[in-house]
Amino acid sequence: MAAALSEVSGRPRPGGWTRTPHYRLFIKKIPKESGFQFKTKYFQQKVDHFGFSEVSTFKQRYLIADQDWDRNGGPILFYTGNEGDIVWFCNNTGFMWDISKEMKAMLVFAEHRYYGKSMPFGQKAFSDPKYLDYLTSEQALADFAVLIRNLKRTIPGAQNSPVIAMGGSYGGMLAAWLRMKYPHVVIGAIAASAPIWQFENMCPCGSYNTIVTKDFLKSGKGCAESIRNSWGAINKVSSTAEGLKFLSSIFHLCSPLQMDDVESFKGWLSETWVNLAMVDYPYAASFLEPLPAWPIKVVCTHLKDPSLSEELLLKKLFEAVSVYYNYTGNMKCLNISQTATSSLDDQAWYYQSCTEMVMPICADGINDMFEPAKWDFPAFSEDCYKTWGIRPRPDWIATNYGGKNISSHTNIVFSNGDLDPWSAGGVRKSISDTLVAITITDGAHHLDLRSKNPKDPPSVQKARTQEIQYMKKWIEKTKK
Amino acid sequence: MAAALSEVSGRPRPGGWTRTPHYRLFIKKIPKESGFQFKTKYFQQKVDHFGFSEVSTFKQRYLIADQDWDRNGGPILFYTGNEGDIVWFCNNTGFMWDISKEMKAMLVFAEHRYYGKSMPFGQKAFSDPKYLDYLTSEQALADFAVLIRNLKRTIPGAQNSPVIAMGGSYGGMLAAWLRMKYPHVVIGAIAASAPIWQFENMCPCGSYNTIVTKDFLKSGKGCAESIRNSWGAINKVSSTAEGLKFLSSIFHLCSPLQMDDVESFKGWLSETWVNLAMVDYPYAASFLEPLPAWPIKVVCTHLKDPSLSEELLLKKLFEAVSVYYNYTGNMKCLNISQTATSSLDDQAWYYQSCTEMVMPICADGINDMFEPAKWDFPAFSEDCYKTWGIRPRPDWIATNYGGKNISSHTNIVFSNGDLDPWSAGGVRKSISDTLVAITITDGAHHLDLRSKNPKDPPSVQKARTQEIQYMKKWIEKTKK
Repeated sequence: MAAALSEVSGRPRPGGWTRTPHYRLFIKKIPKESGFQFKTKYFQQKVDHFGFSEVSTFKQRYLIADQDWDRNGGPILFYTGNEGDIVWFCNNTGFMWDISKEMKAMLVFAEHRYYGKSMPFGQKAFSDPKYLDYLTSEQALADFAVLIRNLKRTIPGAQNSPVIAMGGSYGGMLAAWLRMKYPHVVIGAIAASAPIWQFENMCPCGSYNTIVTKDFLKSGKGCAESIRNSWGAINKVSSTAEGLKFLSSIFHLCSPLQMDDVESFKGWLSETWVNLAMVDYPYAASFLEPLPAWPIKVVCTHLKDPSLSEELLLKKLFEAVSVYYNYTGNMKCLNISQTATSSLDDQAWYYQSCTEMVMPICADGINDMFEPAKWDFPAFSEDCYKTWGIRPRPDWIATNYGGKNISSHTNIVFSNGDLDPWSAGGVRKSISDTLVAITITDGAHHLDLRSKNPKDPPSVQKARTQEIQYMKKWIEKTKK
Repeated sequence: MAAALSEVSGRPRPGGWTRTPHYRLFIKKIPKESGFQFKTKYFQQKVDHFGFSEVSTFKQRYLIADQDWDRNGGPILFYTGNEGDIVWFCNNTGFMWDISKEMKAMLVFAEHRYYGKSMPFGQKAFSDPKYLDYLTSEQALADFAVLIRNLKRTIPGAQNSPVIAMGGSYGGMLAAWLRMKYPHVVIGAIAASAPIWQFENMCPCGSYNTIVTKDFLKSGKGCAESIRNSWGAINKVSSTAEGLKFLSSIFHLCSPLQMDDVESFKGWLSETWVNLAMVDYPYAASFLEPLPAWPIKVVCTHLKDPSLSEELLLKKLFEAVSVYYNYTGNMKCLNISQTATSSLDDQAWYYQSCTEMVMPICADGINDMFEPAKWDFPAFSEDCYKTWGIRPRPDWIATNYGGKNISSHTNIVFSNGDLDPWSAGGVRKSISDTLVAITITDGAHHLDLRSKNPKDPPSVQKARTQEIQYMKKWIEKTKK
């Protein structure tokens, strides 16, 4: 059925962006201490909520902080965990910690099944794709619904607590979907940078890279153009053995490039530019990597002259990517497989993108600065089949969650930063009084969920204020 | 794991109503010709919508009638098939046929998976419980959603057709749930006699039998009391071999009663009274059995004197049940296993009631005319485990569909007849402007879905008018 897991590669394949460059792929840091005070707990979940013959259970991890909670029915802010270790998301969602006092709220961060320490089938989970059959957004939403009902039943004072779902990125999609599918469980949702429309027939596959390109265009003259020119330079230089050696040397690569590695090398560069667009924050931060404030601007200081000779351009390119990979100056060499699927979390996300989470991305080199690459679904599907023995169902998300036709739902805030490539697939216009879009000018990927910072642009301050207002309104309404 | 299917018994077990006396259990007639004109079609469905490793498909049967349809976006009335042959439901849902011209509607009747001719795994389906793992309401709803999207995509003129879900009884529950879970697929639902609250902690288990009893109380003096007294008479008479012989003889039973059969015999009688309450229609009809108008009144003409001696009372009881089983006078003997699980459809419903559809029913003999019988969940669960190797999850329906907390949904009409025991678990008060309850005075089980009849009480005429008005309103709104 499926190839050995060691064959799973996270790199974009030749001929197209056959992998979704979702930022999950880039998490590799061990969660840092944030100083936030929470308790770690585990809840016994059914592996299969939708069938009865599989009776296994697993322990779902969740983090809970009730120091600011009004024990007489105060609200619960429930983070719908993404594709990774929940501690990391907890530590990177300072917004919830910033507002818990004002909201008198309990904070809960629930880990997504098959990530972090929440493993159905434990060690076996990734040994055979049959154990991954329960890794779907529907099962994850059911976990959240079951957990919330259990918390309300078992925590004294929580019985009548209104619950609001919150999440960013895939976690934001889950927050919105939880409200859509389980409106009796959560009274509303804050869905930050949630690309619920980054699917077949819902948005142009090129928009994503157009936004990345815009960020570079406005961050320095000649910057996007330099990157656009770099692909030809790489192709030309890498066509000889000597050129490959030159490339490996000026990029300080840990392993010298082989002819077969050139596509991966370009994929690694592409992902670097995309990541920078996601984390183009107004202050120094270590979301994916330790970075300076407005990192793209810093990158662009190295890429001012697109008309340089190939060799000079590539040297500049190395300086530019070093801002991302080696801002601290501690790295001795660069590893182009750094963004590839190395961890189990990466593999789990790859499985999800091979099943439901099929998010088409493409480039044309005209409206964007990337090498042209069509969205090649057949090739993508073939890769999935080789790796997991399954075929993606690109239409299922629309059938299940409604696609663009979601107007009958209520109480969801969709926030998007205009710098964030994922905003391409986000809800950027309000649909009704209670399905509200907030645009954060100069905002990257779910900036609003991060801790407040003196350098926050006014747009994100305003977004947070609005989000708090909506949440209070939803809560108020439950009291009537 | 599971016992052989031949061991499945449909009879209530001693110690409690361990089987849900849902009317599914009583369908046994071959669908009669109705004269309605439709085409029979099949659609290829995935056996598992929620996982990716099971890749089997099956052919879902659906019936389609477009003779009255406005081919330029006219509405589609979509019957969400219940636990049985869809042709039978099609022929017993005259309301849709009565209104198709006025609504310029296409009619579609979709069969529920694992019933009729819509069999995942074909002949194998019931050979091992593992093949039944996909027999759930969630999978059935996904079938409906996928089918509707496909019809709209493939039928010229249907692309913008608004779709309204309709159904009665379990089909009504599915119609309501389809609107709740897939509001992007159906703009509203008519849920007739849909006991969506006949579940744990949502309604008292005794209400069901109290309603049955009320029907008998008002249909003739001494009637309910005679039935209440009959249990003691049966217990006493059946305690001797001679008494058993007497019972078998006066009831003209096809097989003589053994001591072990007494509980089944009483279960068979109980189900007969319950069925009569469901089909207490104002005109002669053959819904479950060929019956006269107001059959309970006819039954009660035989049960006027509760103070008769045991033997005389039992003789009268035989006359009474004969109204139900032998109104045509063609039966030579009565078969007490007639209501038991004999067909595959019955087995499929038993499986569903052993998994999600756990609908507690009980009796106390005081507020109702039945022998006291607690709702004995542990015994029920044990029976399920013995038969299918699985355990029920009585709480799942509430988690998934919201239980009593459904106020955030819109555009559902819940109709209930006050004679219908299933109204006990129905939505009998409007929840909002768009979640509307309609009570049909003198109405039995989804009378409103039946063809119009000169003997229809004004209440059902009014209900149908309201239902049409709501549907038109929903459709109108989609055009804005």
